[in-house]
Amino acid sequence: MKKISDSTISRLSTYYRTLSHLIDQGIETVSSEQIAEINNITSAQVRKDLSFFGSFGKRGLGYNTRDLRDQIANILGLSKKWNVALVGVGNIGRALIDYAEFKKQGFHIKALFDNDPKKVGQEIGGLKIHHMDSVCNVVKEEKIEIAIIAVPAKVAQSVVDSLVKCGVKAFLNFAPITIKAPDDVMVKNENMSIELEALSYFLTQNEKGD
Amino acid sequence: MKKISDSTISRLSTYYRTLSHLIDQGIETVSSEQIAEINNITSAQVRKDLSFFGSFGKRGLGYNTRDLRDQIANILGLSKKWNVALVGVGNIGRALIDYAEFKKQGFHIKALFDNDPKKVGQEIGGLKIHHMDSVCNVVKEEKIEIAIIAVPAKVAQSVVDSLVKCGVKAFLNFAPITIKAPDDVMVKNENMSIELEALSYFLTQNEKGD
Repeated sequence: MKKISDSTISRLSTYYRTLSHLIDQGIETVSSEQIAEINNITSAQVRKDLSFFGSFGKRGLGYNTRDLRDQIANILGLSKKWNVALVGVGNIGRALIDYAEFKKQGFHIKALFDNDPKKVGQEIGGLKIHHMDSVCNVVKEEKIEIAIIAVPAKVAQSVVDSLVKCGVKAFLNFAPITIKAPDDVMVKNENMSIELEALSYFLTQNEKGD
Repeated sequence: MKKISDSTISRLSTYYRTLSHLIDQGIETVSSEQIAEINNITSAQVRKDLSFFGSFGKRGLGYNTRDLRDQIANILGLSKKWNVALVGVGNIGRALIDYAEFKKQGFHIKALFDNDPKKVGQEIGGLKIHHMDSVCNVVKEEKIEIAIIAVPAKVAQSVVDSLVKCGVKAFLNFAPITIKAPDDVMVKNENMSIELEALSYFLTQNEKGD
């Protein structure tokens, strides 16, 4: 399979949401034009993104919403459950434990880590908080595949290093720092300012237009 | 000015981060190729994105990192301070109050709202929590321009409706629901599952390759 761009994968996530939403509304068929319009992109982009993964839908008939959603779920690996560890049980960490969307999409938080002695040994949502000293044992026991990094910037790199040594290959990083990792490891950064900057741009353009 | 795509704006945010990072490292000049490589895109894309906003840098000499960062900051409206309201002081809300990156980028949380009688009147980080009954007064007093929605899905639409009536035109929505708003209002959705789905795709492809 040829290399697919990050932006195509990100748009597939968006199409997945659009289709789930349409299915919830009882809609059975959708065209690439409709998917495009909902997401403010061109229908050519939608068709190109889907074409990387084979042929979906029938010319002139559009896509069956359920079939297309299931096929995208397969491409994105959302048909299986993923075991996730959360490192850093501060405010962001606690918010993520409660974030129902993760579980809905198949991402199950199975282990918590924090090095604060006041937190180690406590339970949140039925999960015990472990010290990072026992990281490899817990990763092995809980078959952890993805780690969410919600620790302060100054310890984020060492936390990732420890987890990489235990064989974890996928990271979602909330710390405002660029993480270095081997080539066979993927680190995605969650930066909540990016969407705010799009709003800032929108308001700035509006002011200029006034 | 012609209509700029959301993905161009999002990449400008990324370039802004890349440049800030290079400046922190003491690097004074950068080429479109280097910006492209750091962000895993093509240099043609970088040049195209920047070309919408005029001519930056000198052919063969690359860009001055500080100048380009400042110009992108101007385009994105990051040279000014934005007054932000946060609605919903639960776990996500509390995490956002502490999220230092917002302030660093010029987004200042100036007002908190929550309808929980136990929370109304309390203070967090020097900010009083208001009931939504007084929303328009507080929005006016604090000159609120952007609202972050961190309330449960079932009340998110009505919260946005109230704020739109008070003149707020930009929203960052954390509730897992599609918000309807007038054409002159922008709603960006923060969905923390999207990055996890990119990791899921990466791990799925790796498994297939094994």
